[in-house]
Amino acid sequence: MRIAILGGTGDVGEGLALRWAFHADHEIVIGSREAERAVTKANEYEVELSSHGVDEDIDGLENAEAAATADIVVAAVPAYHLVDTIESVAESLTAGTVLVSPAVGMRGDKAGMHYNRPGAGSVTALAADAAPEDAPVVGAFHNLAAGRLANLDVDLSMDVLLVGDDEDALDTVATLTEAIDGLRPLEAGPLDNAPEVESLTPLLINLAKYNDGLHDVGVCFE
Amino acid sequence: MRIAILGGTGDVGEGLALRWAFHADHEIVIGSREAERAVTKANEYEVELSSHGVDEDIDGLENAEAAATADIVVAAVPAYHLVDTIESVAESLTAGTVLVSPAVGMRGDKAGMHYNRPGAGSVTALAADAAPEDAPVVGAFHNLAAGRLANLDVDLSMDVLLVGDDEDALDTVATLTEAIDGLRPLEAGPLDNAPEVESLTPLLINLAKYNDGLHDVGVCFE
Repeated sequence: MRIAILGGTGDVGEGLALRWAFHADHEIVIGSREAERAVTKANEYEVELSSHGVDEDIDGLENAEAAATADIVVAAVPAYHLVDTIESVAESLTAGTVLVSPAVGMRGDKAGMHYNRPGAGSVTALAADAAPEDAPVVGAFHNLAAGRLANLDVDLSMDVLLVGDDEDALDTVATLTEAIDGLRPLEAGPLDNAPEVESLTPLLINLAKYNDGLHDVGVCFE
Repeated sequence: MRIAILGGTGDVGEGLALRWAFHADHEIVIGSREAERAVTKANEYEVELSSHGVDEDIDGLENAEAAATADIVVAAVPAYHLVDTIESVAESLTAGTVLVSPAVGMRGDKAGMHYNRPGAGSVTALAADAAPEDAPVVGAFHNLAAGRLANLDVDLSMDVLLVGDDEDALDTVATLTEAIDGLRPLEAGPLDNAPEVESLTPLLINLAKYNDGLHDVGVCFE
């Protein structure tokens, strides 16, 4: 499977790119608004993988070119760039491409981070509204400990919550999740259930702030 | 320590009463709007504890009487009874009594359960607004798997998130939490961070709905 990671130069994008290349046989393409930056990052990831004994070619392309050739597109960009990013690649997507949205809207105050629910209901719903009708959207990877994800020396043990209205797309993303050792996919229901998934992210940041030893914390349900 | 569990006839109240009596040496009093119902439930809990080799006297009293004699009062009532319940016991509380609020406001639709954030900011903030000024409020036990909590045959392994503005009260509730084998207290910050804690509860219900084997699910952060 060919996976394009738009915003693949940020921390969640980096972790997913490295892990899919490391644990699975997926072809990874890094997307960025500037092709040059995507190429630079792709090369860095190749070096990192090589230092862990894995030789993989990782492509770097401008976002729309990256999305055009992919089976799965992960929009690993901040919430305030999400709609712009999806609109910029919408015409390039082939029918049936699964669009994955890990973005969360948050605001901070003195107490900590808070979920900033958009009028659309959730950030994942914003992505679905911006996506072409023939590109099913799955919300996933909102709650990952990004530092651990990107550190190939660390064994993972985290749950990944999926929301979406398209069963086939959910299955595809669940399979992709399981391809990374130590990640377990769990379904949280239709897109309407995305707010409860997204609001877990500020909670994780608050727990890291108030508890020693919970820096870069993930979540497990049992 | 003497712990009054108002609404101690419901499922979270039952679990906390049984576990504190079973794992720790705390004196438990069950509160209910009707003293008779509190006595009946207290007797049931004594029988349950006795069948697990623990002989403890558990009192049953009308809510205000239960609260009057307690060091800690847990308002284990549904969100829509929370303010009424606190107001009904407010004059009975001695200064410094710690009030613990596990209630969460939710609404359901076809997709699942959703956090129903009250105008006060959170249900825990509603409790704090209703409580006397000299009774510090701690939000805790929102996210427990109530069935497992109340089943003394089951070993627990769950995290408990605490929110509150009074450090001493937080420490007291953290110590009470640790007194139950398998529960780990984690601080989630001041009361202003309660919404992110409370909205985890509908997420747990949604995960139970959409994943086989996750009935009565709890959460761990690692």
